[in-house]
Amino acid sequence: MELIIQKYGGSSLASPQNIREAAQRVVRRSQQGVRLVVVVSAMGDTTDDLIELAHQVSARPDGRDLDLLISTGETVSAALLSMALKSLGQDAISLSGAQAGIQTDGYYSQAHILDINSQRMERELARSKVVVVAGFQGIERTSEDVTTLGRGGSDTTAVALAARLKAKICEIYTDVEGIYTADPRVVPEARKLSEIDYEEMLELASYGSKVIHPRAVEIGKLYQIPILVAGSGSQSCGTLILEGVNMEAKNKVRGVTFDMDVAKITVVGIPDKPGIVTSLFEPLARSNINVDTIVQNASVQGITDLTFTVSRGDTEKTLEIILPVTESIKAQKVVHSTNLGKVSIVGVGMQNAPGYAARMFHTLYEAGVNIELITTSEIRITCIVEEDKIPTAVRSLHRAFELEKED
Amino acid sequence: MELIIQKYGGSSLASPQNIREAAQRVVRRSQQGVRLVVVVSAMGDTTDDLIELAHQVSARPDGRDLDLLISTGETVSAALLSMALKSLGQDAISLSGAQAGIQTDGYYSQAHILDINSQRMERELARSKVVVVAGFQGIERTSEDVTTLGRGGSDTTAVALAARLKAKICEIYTDVEGIYTADPRVVPEARKLSEIDYEEMLELASYGSKVIHPRAVEIGKLYQIPILVAGSGSQSCGTLILEGVNMEAKNKVRGVTFDMDVAKITVVGIPDKPGIVTSLFEPLARSNINVDTIVQNASVQGITDLTFTVSRGDTEKTLEIILPVTESIKAQKVVHSTNLGKVSIVGVGMQNAPGYAARMFHTLYEAGVNIELITTSEIRITCIVEEDKIPTAVRSLHRAFELEKED
Repeated sequence: MELIIQKYGGSSLASPQNIREAAQRVVRRSQQGVRLVVVVSAMGDTTDDLIELAHQVSARPDGRDLDLLISTGETVSAALLSMALKSLGQDAISLSGAQAGIQTDGYYSQAHILDINSQRMERELARSKVVVVAGFQGIERTSEDVTTLGRGGSDTTAVALAARLKAKICEIYTDVEGIYTADPRVVPEARKLSEIDYEEMLELASYGSKVIHPRAVEIGKLYQIPILVAGSGSQSCGTLILEGVNMEAKNKVRGVTFDMDVAKITVVGIPDKPGIVTSLFEPLARSNINVDTIVQNASVQGITDLTFTVSRGDTEKTLEIILPVTESIKAQKVVHSTNLGKVSIVGVGMQNAPGYAARMFHTLYEAGVNIELITTSEIRITCIVEEDKIPTAVRSLHRAFELEKED
Repeated sequence: MELIIQKYGGSSLASPQNIREAAQRVVRRSQQGVRLVVVVSAMGDTTDDLIELAHQVSARPDGRDLDLLISTGETVSAALLSMALKSLGQDAISLSGAQAGIQTDGYYSQAHILDINSQRMERELARSKVVVVAGFQGIERTSEDVTTLGRGGSDTTAVALAARLKAKICEIYTDVEGIYTADPRVVPEARKLSEIDYEEMLELASYGSKVIHPRAVEIGKLYQIPILVAGSGSQSCGTLILEGVNMEAKNKVRGVTFDMDVAKITVVGIPDKPGIVTSLFEPLARSNINVDTIVQNASVQGITDLTFTVSRGDTEKTLEIILPVTESIKAQKVVHSTNLGKVSIVGVGMQNAPGYAARMFHTLYEAGVNIELITTSEIRITCIVEEDKIPTAVRSLHRAFELEKED
């Protein structure tokens, strides 16, 4: 019998009523003669509420404690959904991440899944139970301490389980109907895509689309698990993420995405010697700070400037880490600004067709948006701009690349 | 170095402010040069809120799911208290019941502790950490599924840990100042006891005093762990529960206690044959329904009536279980009433002194309280009376036995 993984996001489980509806959807799917593993997020804003609570008892909550704390949100959802399923006559079992055998490394709040011991899940599936797994959490391999996978971690849990259990598809149910050419709240004429390539989705997710976490897409691509993103409250068919979509489509740009969460840090006046860049970025990597765009100016008289971006929440920690380094390498100063955002165009077809960058820059110029930094991948072009220009930038790019039109 | 167990109840951890205060108390105790294990309940009404949530998604929540659900309340408290301790400079570690090695049987919602694997706790204590343990929960030995110990389970956790770790004392911090001769809300002149015997405390706890759970007192008695019950918000010294207090005290009644949670079930017209009582009570025991008072009338012409009491919450389940049995044994009918309460006088000295029962019955008679059923132990006399007569009964007994006077 085919195995399906479903994942319900926090907004799809925000109330007892939502949970009962999710249970009904699970039962309908189960009645189609498939085996089901259902991964759940914490109800509504539970995770944020728990983090807030942590900050009310401690200015700097310990990572291990924090993970044990916030993991309870998904555990609550799993137990409730399992109850709701049983009350509909569907046998089910709720499992914490530990019970589901999800083993991670020891990076609290941003752990990575190392392995999944699926014996318990397989035993329960063999007993015709729907297996409900608390997403976002696992246990550190040796200590068995609870870890969490970071924001979007439940998506990662779902796709990782799909890979491990060789599921036919991983269905992600959320509060949006699928993947759009741009955020419909910013671009009213944005269009839902019926299919999208892993690579494109990865760029959209990494560069601002909050619909599905990029780690989940990466795992999906690696193990070739088709991922369906659909609205939990609707019967519409959502967007299917899979390999090799749209390779030859006429409209090469598939979506415009943006991210307000950008802080820019510039180290001014660095003596241009080998190893300097390493000495700055290695301690950041060790602290698990994700450095995004990096731009280094051409060296003038042995002196160079280095600019990079991080998430706003990491600004303070980043400055704390690099200030001693910049002093020791005798850089002139460090400046930073946090009122930035980034806007990107994404499309697999772009990699073999010239002129997209020029068209993007021209469009932004005409819309009066000043570009602070540029970064590109094979299938994405990103501009860092002032935060308050982001909506204008997204709308004008959506129009310029005619994304409202069907492929 | 001496080991102390502390336990903080839900009302002592109801808000972030309360948690910070509990942390301060823990730190003060730790600075006295002792090792500390701290057991925590869920914050405020969390457990009730979670149970309410369960009933909103399922009319009859599954026991295993429910335990996984409500166990999260204590886990949250443990993580938060550990954070709060660290923010005060006290190294600490938060452990779930599973991580603390608390192994139970598989009776969900009313599990019993079978063993405690204390290796992890001992390792953390050796590292000079305060070990914060989520109370009320454990794991079933073989499945490793989460179980809960029932109401008052955190007291049980605390005293069981004290026994296992050979602690010098188990300190229970709660929202009352100690053990009183009667509930001060009902009897304003009630007096706090400085010491009380395990046996007396057991009877008080079993017969209505909500201050500490009887199971905890039993374990304390069995392993001879002194238990201090004190107010978390006060500096007063509380009540110490230990062996051999007051054996020869003049005033042999130590307290008056009551319980509103009584349902009476009468099976009328039972053919008086051997094995009949067993056939009624065995299925109740199997369903873990606690039958309290049992009274059987003398048999008249081979026919007898049997009356027993259970907690009100168990009424429906009890009737469900016994109705098929009473039909099969051809009893005439089953009647029940739920508007009853019980009032008890308790004192170790009572067992060797006559006349207490007579004085109790006379006092109730004079106060206009009708007695429905009577049950006694060596150190307790209990009368089942109408619920709305309970306050009158408690006050008149407190006065009759002069409990407001110092020993």
